[in-house]
Amino acid sequence: MGSAKISKALLKRLPVYLNHLKSLPGENRNISATAIARALGLGHVQVRKDLAKISGEGRCRTGRSRDQLIQDIEKYLDFTSRTTSIIVGAGPFGQALLDYSRFENLGLNIVACFDLDPISKQSDSGKPIYSIGRLEFFCKYYDVHIGIIAVPAEDAQAVCNNLVSCGIHAIWNFAPVHLKVPDGVIIRSENLAVSVASLRLQMRANEGTE
Amino acid sequence: MGSAKISKALLKRLPVYLNHLKSLPGENRNISATAIARALGLGHVQVRKDLAKISGEGRCRTGRSRDQLIQDIEKYLDFTSRTTSIIVGAGPFGQALLDYSRFENLGLNIVACFDLDPISKQSDSGKPIYSIGRLEFFCKYYDVHIGIIAVPAEDAQAVCNNLVSCGIHAIWNFAPVHLKVPDGVIIRSENLAVSVASLRLQMRANEGTE
Repeated sequence: MGSAKISKALLKRLPVYLNHLKSLPGENRNISATAIARALGLGHVQVRKDLAKISGEGRCRTGRSRDQLIQDIEKYLDFTSRTTSIIVGAGPFGQALLDYSRFENLGLNIVACFDLDPISKQSDSGKPIYSIGRLEFFCKYYDVHIGIIAVPAEDAQAVCNNLVSCGIHAIWNFAPVHLKVPDGVIIRSENLAVSVASLRLQMRANEGTE
Repeated sequence: MGSAKISKALLKRLPVYLNHLKSLPGENRNISATAIARALGLGHVQVRKDLAKISGEGRCRTGRSRDQLIQDIEKYLDFTSRTTSIIVGAGPFGQALLDYSRFENLGLNIVACFDLDPISKQSDSGKPIYSIGRLEFFCKYYDVHIGIIAVPAEDAQAVCNNLVSCGIHAIWNFAPVHLKVPDGVIIRSENLAVSVASLRLQMRANEGTE
């Protein structure tokens, strides 16, 4: 499979296609690249190219099977297998991520949360929240592959080091801080500050031109 | 001020600089672009250029005042003023955003949450949660500028339309769906599915090369 070489831009569009296809009413229906492009405000040449890459060439008149396309995109994005993951940080944000049911459809199986000082033993949906002291044993026993960081910025590097020393090689960081990881460890950071700044600067620019 | 013309890449680096500067111990200290670059794993030419843009040229020997640099970045990113914002969707994720205290440091003042069927009248931190029926009155009375969408994908477009009709011209969308907005309305979507897919595809690529 060529999905390791998938471009960043295509990677951004594929979940958008997927959501759109899943949101369409009716079963066993067909859909054309042009209709998808129109609904999503994208160029039809782009959409046709993307879909051809994922799902082969479509037919001119009948379009593509919606269900087949959903299957192909999910397979391409590897949403059909499961990656065992844990969260460190049982604050409101960490627990919201823990209970966010949609992650399972994306192949992310978040099995537990860890905290320095857990106030509750489980989340609203019943997932376990453990003391951080149990992290190492848990990671090795359950073969955890992704560690999600949802602690304050000042604690994030220590948590990151702890996760790496527990054998975790992929980190998803929600703390607003730059984390250092050894070679071979994958890190992805969500920086909501960038979004807030971008939104507010765009607003100000628009106000300036009105 | 030139911040309306700020490049995307610089916009991503500025909050990272800011967090780093704030995390440094000690008061009234000076810091050089080289030290910042080293700490964050960035090129020193890049950092020097960025800081010169935001804060003027630094001095070769003494470096820059850390506190002045923090002030200049916050001013550049407009984090020192406040934008009144509301959230629609009082599920765990919406409430986590509502109570995320760090947003205030970014100039985002989230004053209330709205839901079709509010289970509670306030969040853990005491912010009000209202029925969606009160949205229009509230937005006009309190001069709300940003609407944050934290509802399921299938409800997001209707909520978005509602926000726009209430006079809101900037939308921050956490629902995993493409939203259509009229010209002049700014929209920014966070798509966590893209992050999950990217992280898992990178992991798979790494496993393939080991």
